[in-house]
Amino acid sequence: MLQFALLAAAITSIYVSRHYSPLLAALGFSIVGYQATNALIPRVSSSFIKIGLFGKDLSKPGRPVIPESIGAISATVYLFIMFFYIPFLFYKYLVVITSGGGHRDLSVMESVQEEYLFPHGKMSEYLSAVLCLQSTVLLGMADDLFDLRWRHKFFLPAVSAIPLLIVYYVDFGVTYVLIPDVIQNWLQTSKTAVNLGGFYYMYMAAMAIFCPNSINILAGVNGLEVGQSIVLGVISLVNDSLYLTLGTEASKEAHMFSAILIIPFLGVALALWKWNKWPAKVFVGDTFCYFAGMIFSVVGILGHFSKTTLLLFIPQTFNFAYSSPQLFGLVPCPRHRMPRFNEGDGLMYPSRADLVAKPPKKVMIPVLKSLYLLRLIDIETDAKTGVLQNCTNMTLINLVLVWFGPMREDKLCNRILTIQLVIGLLAILARHSIGSFIFGHDNIQFL
Amino acid sequence: MLQFALLAAAITSIYVSRHYSPLLAALGFSIVGYQATNALIPRVSSSFIKIGLFGKDLSKPGRPVIPESIGAISATVYLFIMFFYIPFLFYKYLVVITSGGGHRDLSVMESVQEEYLFPHGKMSEYLSAVLCLQSTVLLGMADDLFDLRWRHKFFLPAVSAIPLLIVYYVDFGVTYVLIPDVIQNWLQTSKTAVNLGGFYYMYMAAMAIFCPNSINILAGVNGLEVGQSIVLGVISLVNDSLYLTLGTEASKEAHMFSAILIIPFLGVALALWKWNKWPAKVFVGDTFCYFAGMIFSVVGILGHFSKTTLLLFIPQTFNFAYSSPQLFGLVPCPRHRMPRFNEGDGLMYPSRADLVAKPPKKVMIPVLKSLYLLRLIDIETDAKTGVLQNCTNMTLINLVLVWFGPMREDKLCNRILTIQLVIGLLAILARHSIGSFIFGHDNIQFL
Repeated sequence: MLQFALLAAAITSIYVSRHYSPLLAALGFSIVGYQATNALIPRVSSSFIKIGLFGKDLSKPGRPVIPESIGAISATVYLFIMFFYIPFLFYKYLVVITSGGGHRDLSVMESVQEEYLFPHGKMSEYLSAVLCLQSTVLLGMADDLFDLRWRHKFFLPAVSAIPLLIVYYVDFGVTYVLIPDVIQNWLQTSKTAVNLGGFYYMYMAAMAIFCPNSINILAGVNGLEVGQSIVLGVISLVNDSLYLTLGTEASKEAHMFSAILIIPFLGVALALWKWNKWPAKVFVGDTFCYFAGMIFSVVGILGHFSKTTLLLFIPQTFNFAYSSPQLFGLVPCPRHRMPRFNEGDGLMYPSRADLVAKPPKKVMIPVLKSLYLLRLIDIETDAKTGVLQNCTNMTLINLVLVWFGPMREDKLCNRILTIQLVIGLLAILARHSIGSFIFGHDNIQFL
Repeated sequence: MLQFALLAAAITSIYVSRHYSPLLAALGFSIVGYQATNALIPRVSSSFIKIGLFGKDLSKPGRPVIPESIGAISATVYLFIMFFYIPFLFYKYLVVITSGGGHRDLSVMESVQEEYLFPHGKMSEYLSAVLCLQSTVLLGMADDLFDLRWRHKFFLPAVSAIPLLIVYYVDFGVTYVLIPDVIQNWLQTSKTAVNLGGFYYMYMAAMAIFCPNSINILAGVNGLEVGQSIVLGVISLVNDSLYLTLGTEASKEAHMFSAILIIPFLGVALALWKWNKWPAKVFVGDTFCYFAGMIFSVVGILGHFSKTTLLLFIPQTFNFAYSSPQLFGLVPCPRHRMPRFNEGDGLMYPSRADLVAKPPKKVMIPVLKSLYLLRLIDIETDAKTGVLQNCTNMTLINLVLVWFGPMREDKLCNRILTIQLVIGLLAILARHSIGSFIFGHDNIQFL
């Protein structure tokens, strides 16, 4: 009953969107995406298991087998939504008569009501974004199927960003970035922008690599991959709505584009969250992490606010920096660093790296002790000899357990998501207060 | 050595293409596509077998196991080639300065040399074609992995054509078709065109279903799927070159688009042919058949010459019509209808449907006898009772064996491809002689 009401609301909002705003259609398609994903996941799960796409949930009694890579369903539904979305964004009310063989003899303009439509010239930008996301899904599936090596999969997102970067090159080719007022004064220059040329493309490729991989790395607890993507989407929308209500005309266009991509994403992600949250009935797979991260890369690149996008990824960036001593072998790194499940009390405990069997580099011992004093890791020391026995693995997940003590998996996930949300909102606030100070202006006109 | 020379030639032709014609770049990318596909196939084959993508070659002694779905490699290489191709087709020499947040303050036009470039407005058409092909690959992989049911897979190509049809709707919306002179006279009307409206979209969806499935059905002999796609490509190029040299200005644009899509396709298809031809080291999979067929659908739809495209598919159409008595259950249809391999002499013989265990519908007996008299099937009859014992399975492959006698698998494939080439070239000839008579004009101006 509720489902039908929702669907009716969705269709109505899509239908009337043409007279008001593309955001209404985004909302409608978001609901459709939720329903479609939610209906498909239980129907296809067994087929995924049958072809070998499954994994064991190590944080549950009995380690049940559940289907893996189910995020590919969300991603595919999203792609088809983005196809059906096109007429509601770009329809140009232009009728052309052909006489075969590609002849276009007559152009007949009908009633043009451009005001509530998105600029038609943005079509190829939009299509390149969808192509990039589809390439991400295609290569993500290859990763999930063939279990690629780390050094290959790390660069996959840059490969799938190729259509985006090439259309950017052909259609816009903007490689100038603003110089902050502070630096202008410091360098005694009157130039307000600098042309980065080819480096700008490397920067964009790096963005495309960063967002997907940083989501993929912050994982290991039921619901965390999709949960953090949803929080990222919500923070982005808060930022977008600031611009859409208070921003300058040009920044409105960029943030309309962002909202248009993110609102339907939230629909398919929420449906996946329903199935992936504790206790998980499906795993999301690398496909979803790449796909979700790529949406934020695309939005940041095409909207020219990639620095703001990076602000949203503070927890992920922290997680990566915090992990690096283990990733780069300075501190021993066990194969899995996800928290340890205790069947006795059903709680998650921080997992630990053994420092006796494989001692850390000498130089790291004072570092580890300082981190311990700063409460950034937990250490167990031999009471007699004072030798380090083990330390908690350096991931944001374990750190939250160190800070707040052992807790159930769902509580842990929610705690991390709350921290992420608070940091993200503070970052947005900071961006519009400190940011306008550094750059000498902001694109938002506060009262 | 030859490889390096080829690659150097490819890079040169891509580089200089901007001063001459996009066709030169197409040729260059075609060579690059051949080399990339040819290098990738042997490297990834074992991974395909490992995840369960393999099949048994029933027409070889010992029925060896070989990797399946390898055509996905050709298709993926093609998609990335089409991305890198974009600047050589559409670069517009336009530099815009941004001041962050989506501001576009300044537009600086640099030297515009549009004459040797493809019309920039065609960009979204091109991107929608690539999106459609990528969707085809994505859904084709789903088919290869999950082994979908016939009633689902038959309609898959229509689903992947959605981005194409939607961009067509938004950007062009041409749903008029020409009325042939003959019918104009017959109906006593002066209208030269009729608006099909929504039916035109159904017609395009039908085209998108027809080409991929008809390639998928004409299969069962090493190299035939990819071989027939190559022959289709060659015939299309002959047609395109007629228009590009003798055609009207508007038809040149449509056939340039066709050549631009087909030339790189021939590169990746030839590399696949090298590995799939007798004795096959890899199977191509449904992904490739859908992908190859979709290229011809896309070209026909966007170029507004879908009737000509259908002419190229005469052998496939015949194969489908010829198969229909078995497909619709009028004549018994065994699970496999591919020709029978005789290990003794290593030759292929027509496979037969048993008419004793499962007799055909009564009405079909005179039909079968007539087909036998027309040499369109072979029948074995009980010498005493005159009861039909069996008939050859109704596929083009078996028919060629009935006509020319048993032969080795590679000879059989080449014989079918030769027949296809001759029929195709005759169809093109007929289209420009009889076609111009029926429609009262042709888009080619003969001397």
